[in-house]
Formats: sequence, C-alpha cells, structure tokens
Amino acid sequence: MLKISTRGQQMPASPIRKLVPFAENAKAKGTKIYHLNIGQPDIETPPQSLAAVRNSNFKVLEYSHSAGNESYRKKLVEYYRSVNIEVTPQEIIVTTGGSEAILFGFMSCLDPGDEVIIPEPFYANYNGFAVEAGVSIKPITSHIKNGFALPPIEEFEKAITSKTKAIIICNPNNPTGYLYNEKEMEVLNQIIQKHNLYLFSDEAYREFCYDGKHLSAMELKGAEQHVILMDTISKRYSACGARIGALVTKNKAVINTAMKFAQARLSPPEFGQILGEAAVDLPADYFEKPKAEYLLRRDTLVKRLNDIPGVFCPNPGGAFYAMASLPIDDGDRFCQWLLESFDLNGATVMLAPASGFYSTLGLGTKEVRLAYVLNTKEINGAMDCLEAALKVYPGRTM
Amino acid sequence: MLKISTRGQQMPASPIRKLVPFAENAKAKGTKIYHLNIGQPDIETPPQSLAAVRNSNFKVLEYSHSAGNESYRKKLVEYYRSVNIEVTPQEIIVTTGGSEAILFGFMSCLDPGDEVIIPEPFYANYNGFAVEAGVSIKPITSHIKNGFALPPIEEFEKAITSKTKAIIICNPNNPTGYLYNEKEMEVLNQIIQKHNLYLFSDEAYREFCYDGKHLSAMELKGAEQHVILMDTISKRYSACGARIGALVTKNKAVINTAMKFAQARLSPPEFGQILGEAAVDLPADYFEKPKAEYLLRRDTLVKRLNDIPGVFCPNPGGAFYAMASLPIDDGDRFCQWLLESFDLNGATVMLAPASGFYSTLGLGTKEVRLAYVLNTKEINGAMDCLEAALKVYPGRTM
Repeated sequence: MLKISTRGQQMPASPIRKLVPFAENAKAKGTKIYHLNIGQPDIETPPQSLAAVRNSNFKVLEYSHSAGNESYRKKLVEYYRSVNIEVTPQEIIVTTGGSEAILFGFMSCLDPGDEVIIPEPFYANYNGFAVEAGVSIKPITSHIKNGFALPPIEEFEKAITSKTKAIIICNPNNPTGYLYNEKEMEVLNQIIQKHNLYLFSDEAYREFCYDGKHLSAMELKGAEQHVILMDTISKRYSACGARIGALVTKNKAVINTAMKFAQARLSPPEFGQILGEAAVDLPADYFEKPKAEYLLRRDTLVKRLNDIPGVFCPNPGGAFYAMASLPIDDGDRFCQWLLESFDLNGATVMLAPASGFYSTLGLGTKEVRLAYVLNTKEINGAMDCLEAALKVYPGRTM
Repeated sequence: MLKISTRGQQMPASPIRKLVPFAENAKAKGTKIYHLNIGQPDIETPPQSLAAVRNSNFKVLEYSHSAGNESYRKKLVEYYRSVNIEVTPQEIIVTTGGSEAILFGFMSCLDPGDEVIIPEPFYANYNGFAVEAGVSIKPITSHIKNGFALPPIEEFEKAITSKTKAIIICNPNNPTGYLYNEKEMEVLNQIIQKHNLYLFSDEAYREFCYDGKHLSAMELKGAEQHVILMDTISKRYSACGARIGALVTKNKAVINTAMKFAQARLSPPEFGQILGEAAVDLPADYFEKPKAEYLLRRDTLVKRLNDIPGVFCPNPGGAFYAMASLPIDDGDRFCQWLLESFDLNGATVMLAPASGFYSTLGLGTKEVRLAYVLNTKEINGAMDCLEAALKVYPGRTM
C-alpha cells in the first residue's frame, strides 16, 4: 500500500472549505447566499492595470528574472517609498502571491522543529505553511473583549523557548481587522531584538486602515535585520487572481537564501507582474475610493451586528474583516445550519466559523469572521438574515 | 546573530546562474552571446492563446478554484485524451508551473529522510525541491556512451532501500534529450509495482519527440495508483512566463492531499489559466510546425557537434536539449572561459556545464548541455564559435 506522507496527513484542510458542499446544496435549492465568508473583494481591479495586461504586445511569454522583472522591482521601490518604506530593488523578491512570500520566509529562516509565535486568532493558512516547513506554531491569545489588541509582553516571553525563531504578525489583521498601534509595534521591536527573533510581517491590508496610521514593521528602528515583510497585491488592488506578492527584507543573508528558493521555481507569473507594475502608476488618490467604500461597509456591518441582542463586534481598525461573538452554542454548527436549514425570503448568509483561526482548541467556538467584501445593500440583506436566524436557531443561548 | 535555516544553507544555487555575471561582463564589452544555456524557447507563444488573455473582459481579477478553473480542467481532460491519457477533471490540480507540481508531489508523498531515485544527469532543480521537502536523492547514472539510456534494472534494485519511496523520471529528458522507449517504461513499471514505489513522471517535453513515440507513465498498466504526472505548458506552448502546470494522478489519496497544499496557496494564476485553456483549442496540427523547427535545429546542432574533432553528442530523441562531451579539462572552467576570454569576430557562446546535472561528484566534468532554442542560423554561428574555441582553449585535451 502506497503511503501518503506524514506531512501530507498533518496538512490541515481549509477550515472554510468544509462548508462549501452545504453552500452548493443551498444554491441548488435556489437560495441566495450572501458571501461574507471569504476575503474575495467585489471592488473592481483598476482598469488601467488590467489594460496594461490586455495591451501587452510581446510575442513570446518568457520566464522573468527569478526575483521578478527588474522594471517591476524598481517600480515597487517607488511604491514602498510612498508608504514610508525605504528599500532597493535588490531587497525585493517578487513572489507568486503573498503565499509564496510566506513559504520562502519560512523555508529560509526556519528548520523543522523550530517554533514561531503568532497572536491568535490568525490567518488559517499559516498552519499549512508551518506544516510544509516542519515548524511548530505557538499561539498566544488575543481576546475579543479587548478588541484583539496585542497580548502583553509577558505572554510573549512566557511562550519563548530556545527553539523560538520568529514572531508572525498580520497588520492590519486577518481575521480580526485589528490595527497595531505604534506602542504595540515598539513592544514587538523590543521582544525581537532582546530575544534575537525574526519578525515576519504580513501587511496585505496596509492601505485599508480607518482609525489610525499604519506603521510597517519595516519602519522599526534597529530591527532592519530582523524584519521580513510578506506582501501581496491581491487585496490592495483587488487582484487576487494575479498571484503576485513580494518578500522584502534588508537582511542580505535572508534575501540571498530566499533567492535560491525563487530560482528553483524559476519565476513569478509575467502577466501579474505587468498588472502590478502598472498599478504603481495609479493616481496618488486611487485608494481613497475603495477605502471610503470599505469604511462605509465596516460602519454598516459593525452597527448592524452590535444592534442584534447578544452579539458583540469590536470595531476593527483596518483590513476588511470583523470578528463577532454570537449568542450560540457553536460557530461551526451555526454556520452549517445557516446554509442547510435556514432562509429569510429565499436568502441566507455564509460566514466563517472562527474556530479555524484559533490554534488553541476550544477557543473561538462562539465567534465568526465576517468579510465585508459586499456593498452595503448586500451587507444589510446579510444582517437581516443573521438577525432573523439568531431568533430561531435551535442552539441559540439567549 | 540571526541564523539562516540549515535547509536554506543546503539549498543549492542555480548551477547555471553562476555564469551570469561573466555573461553580463561580456555583453558590456559588446560581445554577442549565443544563448544555448537555458530552456527558454524563441518559438512564438500561440497568438490565439495570447489573444484569449488580451481579449478577456472581466472586471475583477478573482481567485480561481484552488485546483484551477473547472472550465480549464475540463479542457485539460480533452488535451490529455488527445495524447492517450484518460483522466477526469477531479484527477487534475492546476499548479503554478511544473515547479509547483513537483513541490506538491514531493510534499504529499515524501517525508524528511525519505529517498527518491533519479537517473542522472537530471534537471538540477529537483535538488532544490528535494531540499525543501527534506528528501534525499539517490542517483543512478546513465552514460553518454549509451546515449543516456535508462540504467539497467539491477542498478535500480541496488539503490532501493527501506527508505526509498519514489523514482523520478523526466521523459523526454532534460538535460539529455533521451526519450524512454516502451521497454524501458515497462522496466520502470515492474520496479515500482514490485517495490511499491511512486513514479513521478515529468513530461514537460511530451510533444517534442523526433525518433519514436512518447509513452506516458500514465499509460502504464497496473501502475495507476503509483504514477504522479508533473506537467507544464511552459515548453509545450512556449509560455514559460504563464506559470501554469498540473499535477495529475489517479491516486485519490494523493490528489486529496495535494489539494490541501493547493488550498494553502489559494489558487494558480488566472491569466495563465486563460492562456492554457485557449491553447487546448489550437488546431490539431499546431505542434507540427514547432516540432519540425526543433528537429531541424537538432539535426543541425548534432551534426555540427560531431563534426568537431574530439566532440561526441549522442542524437537526442526528444525535448530540445543535447549533451555533448568535449575534449576539455573541465566544463565549468571552459564555459566561464568562453564568456571571459574568448570571442570569434565579436561573438561567443554560452553553454550549461553538465556537472550541475549530476548528483555524483566528479561526473559530467567534460560534458556540457546545449539547448537548441535558437534558429539554425544562430546555431551555426554558435557552433562556429565552439569549434574555434576548442582549437585555442588552454585546457583542451586534444
């Protein structure tokens, strides 16, 4: 009998995907589903960027440089300068989505058995990349009652062992929408320097901050050799299908090592690079419109949620996610029930159970994540469904 | 001091890349370089496929399904049927280049410490993916004097240990151009069934076979659960920059496991999938023209090589590579010298030293790989250079 690898067996399935068959059944019955379950924005990809791809006129679709086209890396230097990050083209490796930046970072800095600390709840796919790299995730818990603020420094220090090699943050955060403030970033800076750790900083949602200024980990003083930025254009320009991201660091040894992984896979996708390069030339005020739209959606969503008896949703400072605790027995069961046994005038809502974002077993069972990637009319429709559902759900606790 | 991972240190640099600075210097001096060193074809990407991308009219560049667009996987079923491979859309995962198919295959089937057997010389990047997966490569040597035929069954059986989990072949072969015949494929079939091994089959060059019929590993009787096809459209349609490949297998446990790795990285690039899907609809005779062109180049290259005193180049049956042994002291030194210290009327040739394709230290030191990705005029120019160079190279052995 041929065997699957232990690693393959340990690899987690997507926690969101397990609800897909129930959603498909609901759709087959004619039920409309409000998809607040995934971070696929409905915002239009900038037409100028799409036009750059559509107007391209080369005859041979060649490999690019393994680090990405030089012209694109030079443009990215301009982009990063515009967000207060000073880097050179040699400090950037263009990756296939932010996913590959995470993988290259893990592979370059971490060995099997090493530990990384991540404030939970966290982006569930970090689990997958940790399994690929043989790395062990040590969560420290952030709490909904504190709006998911960074846990105190003592929690980090309790979690640090001789095997700890890195801390991972996502700022602003997926799934909580929390935006780390300057003081919290300085706490992280102290920890990584004192304990000699890498700081992997996932800043996919940098542009979408509503109640404060984003401070990039790349701006932390004295941390230049510690910080590895894992970036992506997927959310920034609503270009998830381009599969273009970047690993950025001032640590030469890390960039040289990551380049070897980049060479092994030859090059990132060419069309996506053309799109990303054109996006840097968008007008300076480009983000104002999508940001205003997300802000409106956030305010609509958060208000509607907190108006429902027994529901609590802290106001997220960034990204396009919110976490809410619900008066229910179990989020997984509730989300499945919404698809399987509920509708309001032929419509229901699909949410992401929060349990998949926690590493500690048993946490987040009464929480759900909502991605406000639909317009306010749709969000209101979704909230009508949720409100009605919570009145009749058999496992309600109020 | 922050440390690079042991894995990162072990990761091999590209054996071809180390010559790049010398090539850049030569170019800066105004020397023309005939690039026979890399598998980047000059053949035009099918205009119909590029047009499909350029005429696309969606407004939001969304994630695709993690396994690739269903419409593309259905088209791929048609394509595979046309080359005698019967599969369903559920047996296909669209990957980001063939590279990712290799990575997913390794990750799904192999654990750190496991061994894989590969006939050497082999595609150098298998080394990189083996390091990523923590897997150990056990080479068995094929010889230029036999035209790089599959080593005898005894060689395989000597190399098999309790840790051996798989055999990897590339057919037709990169770097040798060797096309495995039916008898050799049947030998492999016996070995994998007898010893319960996976067979990873890299068939990137399937369409380019000149002196025989290609037999896919997917056609081997009784081996359905053993075979994992690692495929790519890069060479087939001269679309290296699309970054589209596929992992194909009838082994359900493997496909389900590979899907978890595919979900972690979300999706393959959308534009490349559009291009690949359109390519399946190319006229049935599409490959005749590029194949005839490659055949002409091969015949030109192989004749010119064998006409040079002391040079031996077995006739490769497929792909667009040839390996030649030269009357020289050392291939690495010679290839560097060609760029650094030689020109014929302002031109020189860039070749890939073969040492990087052998796993056994000391093998291939007098061999080079030549990619016939230039037209015959350029190939003749390159051969003029090589012929002249071998008369004056200080390390010549004739």
